[in-house]
Amino acid sequence: MNVTFSAAELAELTQAIERRGATAQTIVGLAALADAGPGDLSFLGNAKYKADVAKSRAAVILIPRDYVGEPAADQLYLVVANPSVALATVCARIEQQLWPKVVPGVHPTAVLGEGVIVPATATIGPLCVLEPGVRLGERVHLQAQVFVGRNAAIGDDCWLMPRATVAAECVLGNRVRLQAGVVVGSDGFGYEFVKGRHEKVPQVGIVRVGDDVEIGANSTIDRARFSRTEIGEGTKIDNLVQIAHNVRIGRHCLICAQAGISGSTTLGDYVVLGGQAGLGGHITLGKGVKAGGQAGITSDVAAGEFVNGTPAIPYMLERRLAILHQRLPDLFKRVETLERQIVGPEKSSS
Amino acid sequence: MNVTFSAAELAELTQAIERRGATAQTIVGLAALADAGPGDLSFLGNAKYKADVAKSRAAVILIPRDYVGEPAADQLYLVVANPSVALATVCARIEQQLWPKVVPGVHPTAVLGEGVIVPATATIGPLCVLEPGVRLGERVHLQAQVFVGRNAAIGDDCWLMPRATVAAECVLGNRVRLQAGVVVGSDGFGYEFVKGRHEKVPQVGIVRVGDDVEIGANSTIDRARFSRTEIGEGTKIDNLVQIAHNVRIGRHCLICAQAGISGSTTLGDYVVLGGQAGLGGHITLGKGVKAGGQAGITSDVAAGEFVNGTPAIPYMLERRLAILHQRLPDLFKRVETLERQIVGPEKSSS
Amino acid sequence: MNVTFSAAELAELTQAIERRGATAQTIVGLAALADAGPGDLSFLGNAKYKADVAKSRAAVILIPRDYVGEPAADQLYLVVANPSVALATVCARIEQQLWPKVVPGVHPTAVLGEGVIVPATATIGPLCVLEPGVRLGERVHLQAQVFVGRNAAIGDDCWLMPRATVAAECVLGNRVRLQAGVVVGSDGFGYEFVKGRHEKVPQVGIVRVGDDVEIGANSTIDRARFSRTEIGEGTKIDNLVQIAHNVRIGRHCLICAQAGISGSTTLGDYVVLGGQAGLGGHITLGKGVKAGGQAGITSDVAAGEFVNGTPAIPYMLERRLAILHQRLPDLFKRVETLERQIVGPEKSSS
Repeated sequence: MNVTFSAAELAELTQAIERRGATAQTIVGLAALADAGPGDLSFLGNAKYKADVAKSRAAVILIPRDYVGEPAADQLYLVVANPSVALATVCARIEQQLWPKVVPGVHPTAVLGEGVIVPATATIGPLCVLEPGVRLGERVHLQAQVFVGRNAAIGDDCWLMPRATVAAECVLGNRVRLQAGVVVGSDGFGYEFVKGRHEKVPQVGIVRVGDDVEIGANSTIDRARFSRTEIGEGTKIDNLVQIAHNVRIGRHCLICAQAGISGSTTLGDYVVLGGQAGLGGHITLGKGVKAGGQAGITSDVAAGEFVNGTPAIPYMLERRLAILHQRLPDLFKRVETLERQIVGPEKSSS
Repeated sequence: MNVTFSAAELAELTQAIERRGATAQTIVGLAALADAGPGDLSFLGNAKYKADVAKSRAAVILIPRDYVGEPAADQLYLVVANPSVALATVCARIEQQLWPKVVPGVHPTAVLGEGVIVPATATIGPLCVLEPGVRLGERVHLQAQVFVGRNAAIGDDCWLMPRATVAAECVLGNRVRLQAGVVVGSDGFGYEFVKGRHEKVPQVGIVRVGDDVEIGANSTIDRARFSRTEIGEGTKIDNLVQIAHNVRIGRHCLICAQAGISGSTTLGDYVVLGGQAGLGGHITLGKGVKAGGQAGITSDVAAGEFVNGTPAIPYMLERRLAILHQRLPDLFKRVETLERQIVGPEKSSS
Repeated sequence: MNVTFSAAELAELTQAIERRGATAQTIVGLAALADAGPGDLSFLGNAKYKADVAKSRAAVILIPRDYVGEPAADQLYLVVANPSVALATVCARIEQQLWPKVVPGVHPTAVLGEGVIVPATATIGPLCVLEPGVRLGERVHLQAQVFVGRNAAIGDDCWLMPRATVAAECVLGNRVRLQAGVVVGSDGFGYEFVKGRHEKVPQVGIVRVGDDVEIGANSTIDRARFSRTEIGEGTKIDNLVQIAHNVRIGRHCLICAQAGISGSTTLGDYVVLGGQAGLGGHITLGKGVKAGGQAGITSDVAAGEFVNGTPAIPYMLERRLAILHQRLPDLFKRVETLERQIVGPEKSSS
């Protein structure tokens, strides 16, 4: 956390109903009850942590009306209607200070090509490059050093962080958020093998990113060979994720860090991929499929399944096989014992 | 796709021999026969998809002379000598519009150090930085926000996309293409453990990238400790790939997304690494080796082998072991049955 | 290597005690004895390579006093007190030429916000962006196109290479080195599932990077949800590594390329993660834990353990299980044989 609060400011901000105890400490951090120390604000958001309140070293603790107990010396309890909601109010205040409202306008060092459309409500930060024909929506914020290629279109209320790149002709919906270093619209990895050399197959499609998508730092999304690579509305993509050409991702998916999706693969809505999961090309994952971290998926997965392992199989089966795998030394011994027993009688009968 | 064609334009562009049917639709997309919808162009490039033509909803379909069949209402068949070649002609036209020819020259916002050599045919886009001593070849295109470090040399006809970085002294051959965010020449990961601390080992070598190499978005190639990290002619590297210091990659290799190669490892020509494959350090993969996705290779692999799994073993063996692994529950049961049967006679004999 | 030496320069630089033989070659490279060719300098740093000296084609070889043997034609041996130390002297000289001392000052194309603190000893290269409130320490070097966000603080003697990004409020210690494209302070991947949509959880914490940390090209470190993501003093992080929000990494750890650490996980001091290793969230790795490449760790690991595999288990056990796994075909055959033998007697007894 990067801002400070006095106890009085917190009491007002959280609309505290009652104060128990007092502290002279300035609040400079937020932490869970068990982790909190001097200078920290904490909260009892879930009844199962009730026992942690009395042991917590937090300077200020947000507690519900029904919490019974008294603070330690130099410690303040603020009784609030709903500690989680009160904490969210504090976080929202911090967020405002961390990301203060930007002033619309175009920084003089930004480079704008011909025919670029920039509404008066948009903010273009220093050293951004917008190639000819780019269209920005209302209240778009290009923070700094952002690149937007020829004829690309950015919807309303998008926020592109430093060095985000959207290549030519690609399209972002509304409220899209690109973290630093994201590349949308790199060429797909397509070659034909001709006379001992890999000849490039033109990659002339685009990437279309739906509304409310967020893409994590340094992730890469390739443009389609032709037609579109698609990221559905509300899908959230973590850092260092690779999405290949012609992939179609449904709505409200979660793709964790370093996962990779090969070309022309399709994900239904609400799919969840664990970190470092890898998907082969030209396969389909149905609605609501979940894949564990590092899973390697090489064939279709039916809607609602939870798969794990490489090659990925149903989660419960994978767990069972993993346990049996660890019992292999025992199994080899048992088979040896059987062999001795079998041979024994045979010998004795001879 | 980002450009539009009328049916008449397409007929001319593909040098159609004959038209069957007609459409008033404007063509705005390209798609496979089965996927195509209104506004799409499709093609019969492979006889095995012949049955898809009649069912296709494409507005225009490129068909060979010997195709028998009539289009639906508002649908046009264009008979061409070779549908695949005709399609390539269309793609090439789209490519020209997607990536229009650049005008040579140095953008006024680019920053050029002393002694930089820029031929009159080269194009340096906005906000590029060229440190002193950089040499660019003929017709080089640095798109925007590219960084080229001290004394680095870029061959003829290279295209460096936004934010590509080539660090000091590194060398690119001719016709090299770096996608957005690529880093060539970061320091190798080398430390010596001295008195409880990791002391940096100077990384004073370079990276040398051969002719016709393409490197995908946000991939990283480390400079050598000394001498060279080498990427052979014609090799293609996908997005988010890591190549460590002193690696030597042969000619015409394919390295798929998120693969990683540890220090001082050598790859022969025509090696193919699947996505997320990981190679240990100081090993050698012979000519034509193929590794499956997520394979983990920790020792040498002989020329021509196809390996899979972690640790990687010959592909057919890995597949067979994977099948047996899935039969472990059955095997445990069978051993249990045997144990009961063995114990039975023993007991009865007592 | 990127600089040239004459034999005489090398003799002086390495404080050679004696010269044997002579060469007219200019030295343009460094290589191991077995790899060296014309124009290369090599050295006998370890007695076990003694036999390689006579076979080496290096132009100049650094040898210890006690080495017995004569050089080939056009080859020079330089006898030095300690060949490894002498080589380090050569590398240090190369390093000076590769990374010449920078001249302090602010490049006129850099964009500095209000209240930015830049000591007279700092160097800010072309096209850097420093948002308001940034504080730089003494002798900081921002090479080019670097972004430093609002109120971030960079300690003394830090070197940020092209396009490195440090987001708002984050803190770097002294002597931190960020390779090209690093992102420090991207948002953590945190959402709450509300009415079928993933609602963003504010990420208002920071990243705190300790002294003497190095972070590799295009790696990403997320800011904490609240409080801090921490990288301990002396820890070295390779390329394309992902560190999620609220992770705490101890001192002097080594995190190899493409490893990923999920949210709120804690690493003790001296932990070593192999390349592409993946760690689940909310777990703890004790001091000195080692994890093999591609290991998948989903639960706590006690101090000093060496784990491998997915899910990660103690290294020796994992190796043993891997060997037994490869013997599965044999095991299935043996069980089949037993079954035949058991059924045999039963049948014969009936």
